[in-house]
Amino acid sequence: MNQTIDNDEVLAIAQRVLANQPFSALLKTEVTRASADGRCEFRIRISENLMQHMGTVHGGVLGYAADTALTFSAGISYGVPVITSEYKINFLRPVIGEMLIARGQLVYKGRTQAVTRCDVFVIKEGEEKLCATAQGTIVVLPESSKSAP
Amino acid sequence: MNQTIDNDEVLAIAQRVLANQPFSALLKTEVTRASADGRCEFRIRISENLMQHMGTVHGGVLGYAADTALTFSAGISYGVPVITSEYKINFLRPVIGEMLIARGQLVYKGRTQAVTRCDVFVIKEGEEKLCATAQGTIVVLPESSKSAP
Amino acid sequence: MNQTIDNDEVLAIAQRVLANQPFSALLKTEVTRASADGRCEFRIRISENLMQHMGTVHGGVLGYAADTALTFSAGISYGVPVITSEYKINFLRPVIGEMLIARGQLVYKGRTQAVTRCDVFVIKEGEEKLCATAQGTIVVLPESSKSAP
Amino acid sequence: MNQTIDNDEVLAIAQRVLANQPFSALLKTEVTRASADGRCEFRIRISENLMQHMGTVHGGVLGYAADTALTFSAGISYGVPVITSEYKINFLRPVIGEMLIARGQLVYKGRTQAVTRCDVFVIKEGEEKLCATAQGTIVVLPESSKSAP
Repeated sequence: MNQTIDNDEVLAIAQRVLANQPFSALLKTEVTRASADGRCEFRIRISENLMQHMGTVHGGVLGYAADTALTFSAGISYGVPVITSEYKINFLRPVIGEMLIARGQLVYKGRTQAVTRCDVFVIKEGEEKLCATAQGTIVVLPESSKSAP
Repeated sequence: MNQTIDNDEVLAIAQRVLANQPFSALLKTEVTRASADGRCEFRIRISENLMQHMGTVHGGVLGYAADTALTFSAGISYGVPVITSEYKINFLRPVIGEMLIARGQLVYKGRTQAVTRCDVFVIKEGEEKLCATAQGTIVVLPESSKSAP
Repeated sequence: MNQTIDNDEVLAIAQRVLANQPFSALLKTEVTRASADGRCEFRIRISENLMQHMGTVHGGVLGYAADTALTFSAGISYGVPVITSEYKINFLRPVIGEMLIARGQLVYKGRTQAVTRCDVFVIKEGEEKLCATAQGTIVVLPESSKSAP
Repeated sequence: MNQTIDNDEVLAIAQRVLANQPFSALLKTEVTRASADGRCEFRIRISENLMQHMGTVHGGVLGYAADTALTFSAGISYGVPVITSEYKINFLRPVIGEMLIARGQLVYKGRTQAVTRCDVFVIKEGEEKLCATAQGTIVVLPESSKSAP
């Protein structure tokens, strides 16, 4: 992957990586945007099996969505395998609706480490509402050389 | 719930809450310890569908496990409904093995807000290894009055 | 304070609060922007006594600057006393230069709790560089009724 | 530095590093414990100029104390220069008293990166109370080879 890669290709790579994640398949996550500048978007249709006991989406799903966007933001920007070192997430409101959208972006890109940010939205009756926000540290794998991210 | 509740009852309540979380059922999470001092333990058998694309357990599963232990630590201590305001998690190593164990504990318990901590371990060939550690803020629900947590 | 307060007044209030903080006086912090939408800016001239042992600005100064901007973002928006519950900060590069600038903004404003964000920049030879970024949770003081923030 | 270094020497090194930090001199911080297993303790006498506007110790001082302990925990354990990548801190109560104590410990030590934890206490009328708790990521400087930490 290099500077002149086009974003259709970045999206195709992101889709391929996601398709190889059994846990993402279990949650039926889709990647709907990915560009070499580190912007990405993931969508998860809200279904009964993503709920907790109070009838709202389980925080674990929001954490997973944020983690995924934080990691891919760096991965698609570096174009090499990366791992998430850590992140922090704030939950802003109970999540009820039809669809989750996690949008990631790059805040800082160093030689071997990036800081990324993610906002998680819920779509309810056609309206998007911010429901969680996260910040994380993503590290380029030392042996990174091959496929992305 | 009051100070003299016995821990068998705390565990039974925690099991009932967990059983009412479809997302926890999807991941087949079990709560194996819960006491009124805020200590709790959750176990998740590692199976193919919890993996990411590099053959290790997906970070989203670790985040879910930590989130669950952080929240229940406060919930079983207060004995009333709580919600997770935020948490931070560090991932320490790639996770390969047979079983995840998330152990939560109370660090500070205020009138309406607690700080809890969770260590996530993986059991591989009988040996436990620390693979993630988290710290979070849990808030007592204002209208909290009834069942726990 | 109400919705129609003008921003000169918000800045004046912020300056008064800051002037009453001996620790901010010790660091000679100035507030250079504050508006009722939660945007604020603080400046600290870099001097020898803010350094650590490797000749760069001490992380404690960056943490203080971020903490201040995170807190004031919520305080000037609510217009009542607030306290910082927690924050997370990423340090992006060694900090060398003439001036620190911490810029805070409101991400989410709930009834009693806000999530805010802060970017810390260093000015070196006239150029601004991002050197730290933070996200925090700010809580409205229960007994809050009087002066701000 | 190696495994057999004695802890008096570790403490002497930590004192020397701290003495070379003008910002720590400004706050009159003392290191009162440092051992090769990563345990360390710092003390700061609370004085008027560490306060904020509500008469309690400024959060920036607590953040500085936590940052220092988090960083030194890793530094004295690796015995080589390190930098703090990020941390998260929870503030637990308003801080009034005579002395701050920050105690750091190592949670995980990898080849190039450690996770450390710190509890900050205040001593008031002879009694210690936990007032903040933090978790952070500390990175070994690539060019690290010489003096500590």
